Amino acid sequence: MPNSLQSNHISSRFDQDLQNVLSNVLSMGGIAEEQLLNAIEALVNSDVGLATEVVEKEIQVNTQEVKIDQECTQILARRQPAARDLRLLMAIIKTITDLERIGDEAQKIAKRSIDLTEKEGGPRAYYISIKAMGHLVSSMLHDALDAFARMDSKSALQVANKEPESDDQYSAIMRQLITYMMEDARNISGALDAVWVIRALERIGDHARNICEYVIYFVEGKDVRHISLDQIEKEVINKNK
Amino acid sequence: MPNSLQSNHISSRFDQDLQNVLSNVLSMGGIAEEQLLNAIEALVNSDVGLATEVVEKEIQVNTQEVKIDQECTQILARRQPAARDLRLLMAIIKTITDLERIGDEAQKIAKRSIDLTEKEGGPRAYYISIKAMGHLVSSMLHDALDAFARMDSKSALQVANKEPESDDQYSAIMRQLITYMMEDARNISGALDAVWVIRALERIGDHARNICEYVIYFVEGKDVRHISLDQIEKEVINKNK
Repeated sequence: MPNSLQSNHISSRFDQDLQNVLSNVLSMGGIAEEQLLNAIEALVNSDVGLATEVVEKEIQVNTQEVKIDQECTQILARRQPAARDLRLLMAIIKTITDLERIGDEAQKIAKRSIDLTEKEGGPRAYYISIKAMGHLVSSMLHDALDAFARMDSKSALQVANKEPESDDQYSAIMRQLITYMMEDARNISGALDAVWVIRALERIGDHARNICEYVIYFVEGKDVRHISLDQIEKEVINKNK
Repeated sequence: MPNSLQSNHISSRFDQDLQNVLSNVLSMGGIAEEQLLNAIEALVNSDVGLATEVVEKEIQVNTQEVKIDQECTQILARRQPAARDLRLLMAIIKTITDLERIGDEAQKIAKRSIDLTEKEGGPRAYYISIKAMGHLVSSMLHDALDAFARMDSKSALQVANKEPESDDQYSAIMRQLITYMMEDARNISGALDAVWVIRALERIGDHARNICEYVIYFVEGKDVRHISLDQIEKEVINKNK
């Protein structure tokens, strides 16, 4: 079980604390992922009930962030971790901020889907593309959380590599929406709601990438933010040779 | 000098480390603020040269984030701070993430301003409103950094209270832009660029608010994220009675 957390922390009270925090992070990630999937479902099916559920459930993600933050602060104060454990705590503190923002973005999608449904009712042609982008982004988030759970830098790198794909989808939908607005001025208001939705999806993809970078930071001991994918790839591959 | 950092850390090597990190955070904040102001200037004056400068300078904000992050990790590992010092480090670790994102958003505004200038050339009527919103948001950022420098929770609260004002400006510009798009389909592409700009400004306002919340967290020892402004106000006022 290379790079796994279990192999390094099996006995002490400290390790129990860490394991506890980690499982809370994963449970928080699970809620964020579910919120995203439900928000997309609510949008494409014009399901106001489901969208309302997503909006109301956002507070759960927020509560988790505050709770895990406190747990991390307590561990830092009581256990005074060093090296690898400290890097892990830093990775967790940063990851939960991204998860909380993902929760925010999912809530925004849900709110927009309510607006869209009320404006005209019934799904629109471009919903198929939004659904596809939503599924790509939620698979990125799922895989990022999976890489986080296993602290697997190679998988994390693969997720980070998917970002250009989501950018392409974003641009394609944007072109579709502009055409739609130009066809008829009455489409503008609804299309702008859709622009917010794909913008939110793009941001969720960014957050998933951030989580992957923290995994690489933890495993490789290197800060890979703000460097290109090619460079990250070299770092990880050289290390794993 | 109530709540000031200076009064609590004057002598030890540890305090020097902390002071050093704090001054780096403020210098990073200064660059982020300058980037924002220059991005707005570049937009309203259709100044591609200045916009290009902002785009190129973004890397400085990123570099600062990585550097301060490492400094904080080292302090955590070597000095094992507790209570108030630990809260301060947590506040710093989170603040620099927001500052880095502000740098990103400023860069996005600069890029959009290049697109807008190339598309048609010359400022548009709604630039006046964007400039006003830009100045409100940059004053929020300035005051947030000032509250951070003095660790002043009352000033931090005042900044957080400005958020509804920036939301109002955002909605007003949005209505202006939609009217502009409906008037002539050829306006759509440029107006969408402007939508990104005000969206970026709104996000910078959010980040400034986040920084204020970290200040309140540090000073009051309470986590005020995800609670309403009224509640925060009660917390701060009760504490200061």
